[in-house]
Amino acid sequence: MREVASGSSVPTVVTVGTIAFDTIHTPVASAQRVLGGSAIYFALGARFFVRPGLVGAVGNDFPDEELSQFQARGIDTLGVQTLARHRTFSWEGRYLDNFSRRETIHVDVGIFEAYAPKLPEAWRHVPFVFLANGSPTHQVGLLDQIAGAPCVVSDSMNLWIEIDRKGTEKVFTRSHGVILNDEEALQFTGEASLLRAARRIADLGPRFVIIKKGEHGCLCLSGGRCFVVPGYPLEMVSDPTGAGDSFAGGVMGFLAERGDVQGASLREALLWGGVVGSLCVETLGPERLIAATRRDIDARFSALRAMVEGT
Amino acid sequence: MREVASGSSVPTVVTVGTIAFDTIHTPVASAQRVLGGSAIYFALGARFFVRPGLVGAVGNDFPDEELSQFQARGIDTLGVQTLARHRTFSWEGRYLDNFSRRETIHVDVGIFEAYAPKLPEAWRHVPFVFLANGSPTHQVGLLDQIAGAPCVVSDSMNLWIEIDRKGTEKVFTRSHGVILNDEEALQFTGEASLLRAARRIADLGPRFVIIKKGEHGCLCLSGGRCFVVPGYPLEMVSDPTGAGDSFAGGVMGFLAERGDVQGASLREALLWGGVVGSLCVETLGPERLIAATRRDIDARFSALRAMVEGT
Repeated sequence: MREVASGSSVPTVVTVGTIAFDTIHTPVASAQRVLGGSAIYFALGARFFVRPGLVGAVGNDFPDEELSQFQARGIDTLGVQTLARHRTFSWEGRYLDNFSRRETIHVDVGIFEAYAPKLPEAWRHVPFVFLANGSPTHQVGLLDQIAGAPCVVSDSMNLWIEIDRKGTEKVFTRSHGVILNDEEALQFTGEASLLRAARRIADLGPRFVIIKKGEHGCLCLSGGRCFVVPGYPLEMVSDPTGAGDSFAGGVMGFLAERGDVQGASLREALLWGGVVGSLCVETLGPERLIAATRRDIDARFSALRAMVEGT
Repeated sequence: MREVASGSSVPTVVTVGTIAFDTIHTPVASAQRVLGGSAIYFALGARFFVRPGLVGAVGNDFPDEELSQFQARGIDTLGVQTLARHRTFSWEGRYLDNFSRRETIHVDVGIFEAYAPKLPEAWRHVPFVFLANGSPTHQVGLLDQIAGAPCVVSDSMNLWIEIDRKGTEKVFTRSHGVILNDEEALQFTGEASLLRAARRIADLGPRFVIIKKGEHGCLCLSGGRCFVVPGYPLEMVSDPTGAGDSFAGGVMGFLAERGDVQGASLREALLWGGVVGSLCVETLGPERLIAATRRDIDARFSALRAMVEGT
């Protein structure tokens, strides 16, 4: 990592997205106002590999201890603003039918009434950028503040594909890589096959397209090659919230650490993403992901690789 | 392969199951009375590797040319009886919601009113047996006619798990391996996790348990190890009928050819099963599977292995 004049290190990967309080109901348990949001889960997944930097905002109800906790976990919060007149974004949702369906009960947009992402000056030359799920306007807004030519990877979700398709497409066009889940990829392209959907998205310009399939792993197109990686088999799922974002954190964290985003590195990154995502779902909220150590994910990576490669 | 006195070769793997006429409606096309049934699809998948032998029955409406066609494809039909007073078993079904649901429209049990499986005397020492989906009574009935200690692998389906749970369990207990799809494994065990379901089935005695996940590949428990193999990504699915049975044919065919049912062989067999199953779904009915050559499946195997292992 490069050092800047202030003595603080510049993050290797910067993410912009939501920082949230989630209220989650699963078939077996509920949790009130636990830490969540796309940028948070991404950073919690990427921190095992490199120093992630958060760009986002919290409201007047966000405890300082939470920010300190991120810093203690190696996440740089220089890009997090506190908007004193607003509340933190919050989401309440429920999982149904053995986690196969999710419904939103309530959303409080909070800080998003007033916020526009601001990249810290010291971070302008960051080499890796992840545009986590958030409005395309914010995603492009962050890109426009970046100097140089970082490796940009973007995510989106059904809401933005529906209400701002053009903006979503613009983000993809400016990205080196795109990570979407299966439903979003089919929705965005109108295709019925994930392989065809991935090809259509790659036609927009990204060098790689990763389609997440939840517990079933993912599929990746890159430079004419296709990789398929199964999910890490789990005995129990407690809460899928944030699994996709932490998967992306694992993928990008590994790519940034390796400094290579092609071929064998990309394929290995998919396994690391699967490992991080599988840890994420083991507790309600991000508890397990916060508690996990590099040793934990190394052990699970070895197990997953053995299960996949039969070695 | 061993030669018997008559000069005909004994099959390496014998299967008992249904031989059927299927009428299939998909979201894009329909087919009337195409060849189908669990034993047929299994044999069509296994024939790429070894000589499969069919045990089953057809009715007075079954054309002799069809039997000749099997023989021309390397499938031994010595164990197929014709019941002159009955019609061939037939099934009519419809796929809905982009193939995520299947409903049965009509079943004509035909020969099953009168049939009990009869193993040809010359096949009593067959080394590999696949009890394709069919009634547990018939599965056990075939097992009781076998001499020696072949490697027995069994399949089942929701109907038999529901109406003859004890019989199904008895079949599993007498099997070296069990192959079920995800829904059946959860139904049989009452578990919510495939991994736990596989463990519960393994506790009954089988040395390996393979859980099929359709387009998402499969999971396999064997001797304390777990293998996970993703599905071969397809641009288009025409008809999933028989995919699970032909997958089992690919798995068993390869194991029988290799003469080893453990570790690396078992894991490689899962890839071959995926290859055969993916060919199966590319046409309405078994057309593609009938037309395919060993060269076709070799090419797809190389492609799948590269996608899975990143080599």
